[in-house]
Amino acid sequence: MAADRAHTATLRVHCADRPGLVAALAQLLYGHGANILDADQHADARAGKFFQRIRFDTRALHTDRVSLERGIGEVAERFGMRWHLRYAGETPRMAIFVSKYRHCIYDLLQRHEAGELRCEIPFVAGNHPDCAPIAEHFGVPYHHIPVPRGGKAAAEARQLELLAEHRVDLVVLARYMQILTADFLEGFSGDVINIHHSFLPSFIGSKPYHRAHARGVKLIGATAHYVTAELDEGPIIEQDVVRVGHRDAVRDLVRKGRDVERQVLARAVGWHLDDRVIRYANKTVVFA
Amino acid sequence: MAADRAHTATLRVHCADRPGLVAALAQLLYGHGANILDADQHADARAGKFFQRIRFDTRALHTDRVSLERGIGEVAERFGMRWHLRYAGETPRMAIFVSKYRHCIYDLLQRHEAGELRCEIPFVAGNHPDCAPIAEHFGVPYHHIPVPRGGKAAAEARQLELLAEHRVDLVVLARYMQILTADFLEGFSGDVINIHHSFLPSFIGSKPYHRAHARGVKLIGATAHYVTAELDEGPIIEQDVVRVGHRDAVRDLVRKGRDVERQVLARAVGWHLDDRVIRYANKTVVFA
Amino acid sequence: MAADRAHTATLRVHCADRPGLVAALAQLLYGHGANILDADQHADARAGKFFQRIRFDTRALHTDRVSLERGIGEVAERFGMRWHLRYAGETPRMAIFVSKYRHCIYDLLQRHEAGELRCEIPFVAGNHPDCAPIAEHFGVPYHHIPVPRGGKAAAEARQLELLAEHRVDLVVLARYMQILTADFLEGFSGDVINIHHSFLPSFIGSKPYHRAHARGVKLIGATAHYVTAELDEGPIIEQDVVRVGHRDAVRDLVRKGRDVERQVLARAVGWHLDDRVIRYANKTVVFA
Amino acid sequence: MAADRAHTATLRVHCADRPGLVAALAQLLYGHGANILDADQHADARAGKFFQRIRFDTRALHTDRVSLERGIGEVAERFGMRWHLRYAGETPRMAIFVSKYRHCIYDLLQRHEAGELRCEIPFVAGNHPDCAPIAEHFGVPYHHIPVPRGGKAAAEARQLELLAEHRVDLVVLARYMQILTADFLEGFSGDVINIHHSFLPSFIGSKPYHRAHARGVKLIGATAHYVTAELDEGPIIEQDVVRVGHRDAVRDLVRKGRDVERQVLARAVGWHLDDRVIRYANKTVVFA
Repeated sequence: MAADRAHTATLRVHCADRPGLVAALAQLLYGHGANILDADQHADARAGKFFQRIRFDTRALHTDRVSLERGIGEVAERFGMRWHLRYAGETPRMAIFVSKYRHCIYDLLQRHEAGELRCEIPFVAGNHPDCAPIAEHFGVPYHHIPVPRGGKAAAEARQLELLAEHRVDLVVLARYMQILTADFLEGFSGDVINIHHSFLPSFIGSKPYHRAHARGVKLIGATAHYVTAELDEGPIIEQDVVRVGHRDAVRDLVRKGRDVERQVLARAVGWHLDDRVIRYANKTVVFA
Repeated sequence: MAADRAHTATLRVHCADRPGLVAALAQLLYGHGANILDADQHADARAGKFFQRIRFDTRALHTDRVSLERGIGEVAERFGMRWHLRYAGETPRMAIFVSKYRHCIYDLLQRHEAGELRCEIPFVAGNHPDCAPIAEHFGVPYHHIPVPRGGKAAAEARQLELLAEHRVDLVVLARYMQILTADFLEGFSGDVINIHHSFLPSFIGSKPYHRAHARGVKLIGATAHYVTAELDEGPIIEQDVVRVGHRDAVRDLVRKGRDVERQVLARAVGWHLDDRVIRYANKTVVFA
Repeated sequence: MAADRAHTATLRVHCADRPGLVAALAQLLYGHGANILDADQHADARAGKFFQRIRFDTRALHTDRVSLERGIGEVAERFGMRWHLRYAGETPRMAIFVSKYRHCIYDLLQRHEAGELRCEIPFVAGNHPDCAPIAEHFGVPYHHIPVPRGGKAAAEARQLELLAEHRVDLVVLARYMQILTADFLEGFSGDVINIHHSFLPSFIGSKPYHRAHARGVKLIGATAHYVTAELDEGPIIEQDVVRVGHRDAVRDLVRKGRDVERQVLARAVGWHLDDRVIRYANKTVVFA
Repeated sequence: MAADRAHTATLRVHCADRPGLVAALAQLLYGHGANILDADQHADARAGKFFQRIRFDTRALHTDRVSLERGIGEVAERFGMRWHLRYAGETPRMAIFVSKYRHCIYDLLQRHEAGELRCEIPFVAGNHPDCAPIAEHFGVPYHHIPVPRGGKAAAEARQLELLAEHRVDLVVLARYMQILTADFLEGFSGDVINIHHSFLPSFIGSKPYHRAHARGVKLIGATAHYVTAELDEGPIIEQDVVRVGHRDAVRDLVRKGRDVERQVLARAVGWHLDDRVIRYANKTVVFA
């Protein structure tokens, strides 16, 4: 049943697994005239958890959104579900934080321009001015927020202010070379996705390409993960690798790594924006 | 909800897409006490087709199998569904056809021994005697059925006889170097999976490695597909590739190709045996 | 032996294979004080051909370039070698031809900006105006050369004029949607690299993503090749693939394909610019 | 120049990098009538090290092997080279150590049977009897050497005795679940290759699949490395990965891991046997 993308909604739920979950939700949606376009579900048998993502067509709804949401709320209460519903019109708002590296921001802005990333980008913020012309080229406001020694608290306050002002849902750290404090993470109610330039948990911390070269690994990788207060320990969304060999110096690892970094980040951000990711137990379910 | 694998059943359906399909099936299964463990569905918007695979726990069924199947049959009739239900106890029966190449049969029998392929293997048949010791090592009967010039009809008759006698559901052509006739395919009610040693539709027909070498491609591949009367044109189940370069002679392509052939074939066969594949319109939906 | 990249030269040779080739060249270079940094060679036993790429340090040359080249010329004559020598200072000059697609030109210009592609880019030419702002952002002149029905000869004449004026060595067709005529190819003495949006020889010709979708393949790919008068039949430099499935509509193939197109093209162009590719017999030797 | 594989020899050298190395060796071989078939070299600029592998045809040697080796020895002394020369007739001798897992030993023995691994396999040794029938099927003697608590010294003594008796050059640990002691490694003059079931340095130590599952990684891998006294820290020869997702339980990681383990091990062993690997500084140069 072909659906105009503009008239869809996506529901994500997770809860303890119990019989009747799938039927209850399907029945409820059917009862309201919501035609299911896609549904993907997963039961983690060991954790006893149930996860589902349902995308449905809203054009034939018999009822209004209030009734629909009340109905979902009732089912959710009955089964102890956490749920999240997004209508196609409610475009997520994403900010990008950068430092000096240009490959990830170029990639994200170009994919956004090409219609690959379903979001609005109210601003880019950088602790250096280097990427300002790129944002400008794509017509996105750039805020230069330096982070001098001893000035992180003030910088983060300014960042939080901008995030609040622009009602940002998602911050993407596009090779942003500053560690966000626990205060920042508490102060921001949305999600933060980072791209780490190694195949985590290998080479946690700094200078992963140098350490990969020293260890003589034959593949290097990149990892996109949600940021938590534990550095490099947040839930992993996506990873990929690229082959390296004895001819590759550290600078070649850096160059090859750029390609895999930007692809991994783009996939993770795209899935997040399409409501395909559910976090639990420091892991992710990705309905890709 | 952890399920003893022995007490599950898998339902596959496909039909024209319509509202209410998911709810109707979920409700029906719930009503019978069948707890859904996994469900995967797909709607091909362009073709207007709906596909679903549901695996459920049968331990808490309130009713017997006859009632359950009658219920499914009624829903199926209402929606014009084609459906297929398999209980975990009904192990599929797979025969393997071989010629002289050993890598695919070794791989399949070893995976079977390791418990990776959920099937019984009543026999292996070969038009040469070469693979007999392998079958013997794994305790599988081997039938040597030569196909001399002019003798294909007789050989196929013997093959069909064995397939019927052993109630075989699936024939796997593990680099079987004979083309099956339309008569054979009509005479066998089950499915036939072949491994073609190229990345179809590149190099349809014979000697694909020689032609890949002549063309100077940088990747070679393999394709597992259902066999139809159109040679190399049946629905593709799985494909993969491996990198080659100017240092690789034809014999290196053959060697590298063996690895990708056996992996692609094993994945395709495993998915088929787990009822993860639905054929339609000369394509496949693979709920992997 | 670390070498300042600025003081290197790269010699490529190919000829009929004979004993003594490697020793003769190595001895000659050593005699002139050229220290070999890298050497890669290949003998195609079947074709009886020998290929070598030698990169050497020019800082300790005892002689001048004229003497060195005379020496190489003498060895080459003795062995019937074709040879090509490029000093690090002689940066190749690359023009980019585009139509409306933006992903490949963005990718090439961004990699050039990042120092990944060792070349100068005197201009971009497009038969549409769409990509002009991108060229402008990167500070590269853009020439809009429309190709109206019946106007290809005039357009190609203008292109050839620009190529000659800017002494261009390499034209990259970055999803340029026009077929170059045999006249153009004869009129341009340099190389032309094209990116084809399929895994050649699959889906030669137009609309490969539509045909890949119709055939139900499980991987799609892209192919970078030298352009010859035979459409889609020139020597392949690089190929890669990406996995697709039943959930992917044609527009998803197009989106996924963009990623693999730009990577494959960038690798091929990079290797060409580093003098890593030798063409022969409608194939390539790539010393990557 | 096509060479009968039986009449080739392979020379590997490494030393501090200096001008004239390539010329000296090429000249020497040419002088003795040894026609170079392949040569691959690498200079690690940072470490100031030079590595080369030369395969040459011995049929047209003007001199005998003693003279040739004396000549190589003289060049080696002049440049401070370590060198290793193997004639095609000197087939390496490989022993396989196993425990209960069957996939790696099957894979190695089957590849050996198919002519992919250029070695003799005088025996397989296992601390359990499980794999004896596999060795028997392939006609390889099996020694059951239990390693009871407190009995490792005796077991290793028996292993060393067998290795000496059969003049073994290479021991492959095909998922052998015992840690070899420093005494064993000192007592055995050949090389030992291990397959570790993670993408090192991720998940060093035991139960990597369980830990990968707990961490929620999206790729799992395997690493083939030379065994040193530092557990899981020896020089890496080869690595590869396979994609996993939220649907994969630990047992699925184990199953998927088996495939990548056996491929990675087979590639590493094959390269080692073809004299393609040079160890230095706890890393490897692999002329693959």
